[in-house]
Amino acid sequence: MAPLSSYVTGSWHVPDDEGAPLYDAVTGEEVARLSSTGVDFGAALRYGRRVGGPVLRELTFHQRAALLKALASHLREHREELYGLSLRTGATLGDSKFDVDGGIGVLFSYSSKGRRELPNDTIHLDGGVEPLGKGGSFVAQHLYTSLRGVAVQINAFNFPVWGPLEKLAPAFLAGVPSLIKPAGQTAYVTARLVELIVESGILPEGALQLVCGSVGDLFDHLTEQDLVAFTGSASTAQRLRTHPVVAARSVRFNAEADSLNCSILGPDAVPGSPEFDLYVKQLVTEMTVKAGQKCTAIRRAFVPSALLDAVAEAAVARLAKVTVGNPADPAVRMGALAGLGQREEVRRALKALIPAGSVVYGDPERVDVVGADAERGAFMSPLLLRVDDADRPEPHEVEAFGPVSVLMPYTSAEQAIDLAARGQGSLVGSVVTGDRDFAREVVLGVAPWHGRLLILDAEAAKESTGHGSPLPVLVHGGPGRAGGGEEMGGIRGVLHHMNRTAVQGAPGMLGAVTGRWVPGGERTVTEVHPFRKHLEELRPGDTVIAGPRRVGLDDIEHFAEFTGDTFYAHMDEEAARANPFFDGRVAHGYLIVSLAAGLFVDPDPGPVLANYGLENLRFLTPVYPGDELTVTLTAKHIDPREGAAYGEVRWDADVTKQDGSSVARYDVLTLVAKRDT
Amino acid sequence: MAPLSSYVTGSWHVPDDEGAPLYDAVTGEEVARLSSTGVDFGAALRYGRRVGGPVLRELTFHQRAALLKALASHLREHREELYGLSLRTGATLGDSKFDVDGGIGVLFSYSSKGRRELPNDTIHLDGGVEPLGKGGSFVAQHLYTSLRGVAVQINAFNFPVWGPLEKLAPAFLAGVPSLIKPAGQTAYVTARLVELIVESGILPEGALQLVCGSVGDLFDHLTEQDLVAFTGSASTAQRLRTHPVVAARSVRFNAEADSLNCSILGPDAVPGSPEFDLYVKQLVTEMTVKAGQKCTAIRRAFVPSALLDAVAEAAVARLAKVTVGNPADPAVRMGALAGLGQREEVRRALKALIPAGSVVYGDPERVDVVGADAERGAFMSPLLLRVDDADRPEPHEVEAFGPVSVLMPYTSAEQAIDLAARGQGSLVGSVVTGDRDFAREVVLGVAPWHGRLLILDAEAAKESTGHGSPLPVLVHGGPGRAGGGEEMGGIRGVLHHMNRTAVQGAPGMLGAVTGRWVPGGERTVTEVHPFRKHLEELRPGDTVIAGPRRVGLDDIEHFAEFTGDTFYAHMDEEAARANPFFDGRVAHGYLIVSLAAGLFVDPDPGPVLANYGLENLRFLTPVYPGDELTVTLTAKHIDPREGAAYGEVRWDADVTKQDGSSVARYDVLTLVAKRDT
Repeated sequence: MAPLSSYVTGSWHVPDDEGAPLYDAVTGEEVARLSSTGVDFGAALRYGRRVGGPVLRELTFHQRAALLKALASHLREHREELYGLSLRTGATLGDSKFDVDGGIGVLFSYSSKGRRELPNDTIHLDGGVEPLGKGGSFVAQHLYTSLRGVAVQINAFNFPVWGPLEKLAPAFLAGVPSLIKPAGQTAYVTARLVELIVESGILPEGALQLVCGSVGDLFDHLTEQDLVAFTGSASTAQRLRTHPVVAARSVRFNAEADSLNCSILGPDAVPGSPEFDLYVKQLVTEMTVKAGQKCTAIRRAFVPSALLDAVAEAAVARLAKVTVGNPADPAVRMGALAGLGQREEVRRALKALIPAGSVVYGDPERVDVVGADAERGAFMSPLLLRVDDADRPEPHEVEAFGPVSVLMPYTSAEQAIDLAARGQGSLVGSVVTGDRDFAREVVLGVAPWHGRLLILDAEAAKESTGHGSPLPVLVHGGPGRAGGGEEMGGIRGVLHHMNRTAVQGAPGMLGAVTGRWVPGGERTVTEVHPFRKHLEELRPGDTVIAGPRRVGLDDIEHFAEFTGDTFYAHMDEEAARANPFFDGRVAHGYLIVSLAAGLFVDPDPGPVLANYGLENLRFLTPVYPGDELTVTLTAKHIDPREGAAYGEVRWDADVTKQDGSSVARYDVLTLVAKRDT
Repeated sequence: MAPLSSYVTGSWHVPDDEGAPLYDAVTGEEVARLSSTGVDFGAALRYGRRVGGPVLRELTFHQRAALLKALASHLREHREELYGLSLRTGATLGDSKFDVDGGIGVLFSYSSKGRRELPNDTIHLDGGVEPLGKGGSFVAQHLYTSLRGVAVQINAFNFPVWGPLEKLAPAFLAGVPSLIKPAGQTAYVTARLVELIVESGILPEGALQLVCGSVGDLFDHLTEQDLVAFTGSASTAQRLRTHPVVAARSVRFNAEADSLNCSILGPDAVPGSPEFDLYVKQLVTEMTVKAGQKCTAIRRAFVPSALLDAVAEAAVARLAKVTVGNPADPAVRMGALAGLGQREEVRRALKALIPAGSVVYGDPERVDVVGADAERGAFMSPLLLRVDDADRPEPHEVEAFGPVSVLMPYTSAEQAIDLAARGQGSLVGSVVTGDRDFAREVVLGVAPWHGRLLILDAEAAKESTGHGSPLPVLVHGGPGRAGGGEEMGGIRGVLHHMNRTAVQGAPGMLGAVTGRWVPGGERTVTEVHPFRKHLEELRPGDTVIAGPRRVGLDDIEHFAEFTGDTFYAHMDEEAARANPFFDGRVAHGYLIVSLAAGLFVDPDPGPVLANYGLENLRFLTPVYPGDELTVTLTAKHIDPREGAAYGEVRWDADVTKQDGSSVARYDVLTLVAKRDT
């Protein structure tokens, strides 16, 4: 059998040697061979930087998002093939869907977030304009630009499809090429995934490389513009993170390591309550999905001491129904571990854990298996342990990366928080309770140790995705033992691949750099009303100044009567004077913005199609009867929508009165047609 | 002379030994002694975690902000004393103001940002509510909680006041206690600063500790909840970052190291242009302020090759006017380096740099000195070098941490970007030009290598704070050689001391945890109109539902006539139909929100004082003549203002029509009185 090929510098590289064998988790047969011999890692990184990066950075966020969507659709058509390959890793169909559909879902999610939450541009602004001087000639704007390096993505064996895709999607959207390095045991699934991607021709050249096998001297070639995103064991994370080149060049290193995640049952959730059942069901699910080989699985189950027996009993009853065996058999609920080596590691961990308490369910050395040979396949029984002395160190320190959880009692919310913290940092925790005070205390108490927290009650359960499921819109990672990293979280994960820079300068200059009009920058009052300009003709700074419009007491009274807004500050001179902010009757804020629109609008049909919203409206100075309003409306940001007949235009509206002071400032959001429609 | 005391576990610790001597940079006399012998570092960290953290976390962001302001005012009163001490470090009065006033300014800035941009609460929300299911029963919210550890702050010798304060302010605002470790050479200034802080009694117990001398075994006691913020040399950063405990427990490690910052002159800035003069003036300023001992100083000056001679000539003329000597002498423009050791290091670096080019100004071994002994004090001449072959590696690799800069030519914007990037990551860069296209190309090209970029032109120069000045509202740090860290940046720097957690659950549950009403959560329609409730009586979820109000064609026409907003979509049936978003004439968005206010408002004088703004308004469905509007207004977030008679209340407004669909959603911002006013 020839070893898996790597895809580097734009072509498939066949290793120069035989490689090491990989085995089917169920049958023990050889399934693939692995080697990266002959790969030039320095050349691969240079290729990513010189070919992949520039091509990706030519595309806008929206264009990259569209490619992610196309890729997701393409992979969805090839799901079945990936499910089939996954069987050989010991995964059931349910496990594979978690992996394959989950990964495709990440691509769809990033495509959608990219189009909705990022501009159709190659840079992204962070926060607002910061004034740096009182005169307005010196301001600053933070902005994000794409790192000029390669995202080296080192994945774990347990999710050979989701793992690479959840790292690829944010990197790609950020304009950073990826180099994927799958874990050995299940590399043949990732290799096929990458083959499908390459065959599709959807991603631009250089956006993606694959190394099957060891990373050789790759780390020696990293620069300050590259990133490493690592998922795997804490010990490997530690070794890679302290690599001399990573340390010397401050290479961004993101680690996501297995952690001793906990699930806490609330004292209100007594047997018979929906939350009691939810807790037990979730515990068993987390033990058995992927045979417990999930970095997010529940390792420590904290329950009120009075409920410990009841939880143990209910969990045992559920566990007894779990059929272990060949994942190809539809009756099987739990498949094999990824390999015999993994099983040995779990058994070793159990040798340290079991003496701290007792086994409630299962036998580390024996399991009944359906449709497979229990000796050749990496099968194992789910194991539920119980440690009555929750102060014992073992359950807070020893991780068995398999179908293993430990039940422990607690007696107060404070103690539950303390016990959760002993995990020294987790990817996820859950609190199963209907008691909101308990939930608030525990969630805010344990949050500093967690990347994600699930509060499960009967209401949330209707749609809950569960303790163990990272979601693309939420951050995934955690402090301390969990690696101290953070992935995904929607656009947050994109920005981890970009550099944040504070840019200082004069407003007009800053506007030229960011492509936005910056308050204080030059305004261009054109002969043509800007509402008569199509999207391509509009420029940041295009301005209409309209007014003045006098606001009389009659206007205020009329508006009050018409709208029904007879708030005393508009109607009653004496009461208005008593208000700490007003010197007498004032005009309605809504009247001001309505009159402003009446001033700046160009009424005839034209490119401006609709006003779809308003943002950041602040009323700055009261308007009194007799005041005269002028509005200055300036095109601030012009964002063409990819593949649509229009785009979004954000306008700066500044309503002033006769003394020049601003009475209201806000952003008007409009849709403006492109020319050729 | 007794060594400087450390302030640990709530009291001043006198070292058990003699300590090592520190010398006056100007006279060479002993000025202090240094030792941390006898300090129990494990106990200091535990004290911070057990005493300082809990007390700080009892305070809200606004309460902490108020203490920062009080501290800033207190220190301002003791400025003169700190200026005086700083003279002994070789700093001129100007240098000291940069350090002392700059540090006090950071406190004021964080106090102001904390009150304006953070809630009066102990947690901070990040981003909006994320829907996780279509039914609305499962949503998520990212939130920040204070880390439960200690911020270990290791500072550099060059800014003994600004350094500790720029690290203390964000940590304190985040609710994290600080342990300050000043660099040896100037520790006596920091020690006095901390003495002033402790004496003032303004900060709560445990919020601040000081270690003068080595950090001993402190790193062995760090946990995943502690942070290290380091400023200093790249080599020390690398050593500390790879400490086994830092790596094993994923301790947050922020490094800010000296970098080879560049300043680029635009090709437009020929002699006689204001930008030419600004460039030369800034270059000389950056060489001489703090005798060039600034991690942000300009080390590499890139100028168009045609302008190289002119820049060199103009710079030499300016440098010739710089008087070096005793900083106590008002005629002196540049004082001493921090010590003789520092001067030796600079001379060593020059031995590597000078052979790459030529010396344009200065002599590394000789300088005329005013009011001091040139042999005993650490005096040095400013040194301007010139390297005509900009491809030589030395100027991009060797840093002389003193009054030293290297002039180099470039021939295209592309080459300037490439040369800037050879610094492998910088804290700051500047582009001095009036050419906006050049500025855009260079700024976006070099941004991935920079934490901050200044674009200087005649307009910005009116208020520019200069290349070398980090500002509290802007991020300070940079990739690669600059350490890969990020400090300050306003609230960004606060959040670096907090943990971000995604919390998932049912809307009502999530609202209970965050203290905000979450869309989908329970609404309470009370008998009393919520506008009749004082701040203390209002609860998130308090709701008024009002309507329906029919919108007739007459209303639309009347509103159009009254406001002047006769946009065709409101006035012309046929033209409106031709619009891609409307099926006929539609009501004005401003009419909808005006009518909604008329529906939900309670007109009589009461606790609601004013509507000061509106946010996130989106028009979701068109309103046609005959539609009936209902508004649901729900208290979302109640934020009492510290020391004021009122607070801010944010309301969720949902305007629906007869079929239940939302036509507009937005947040209404009001000021509501407290009861006892």
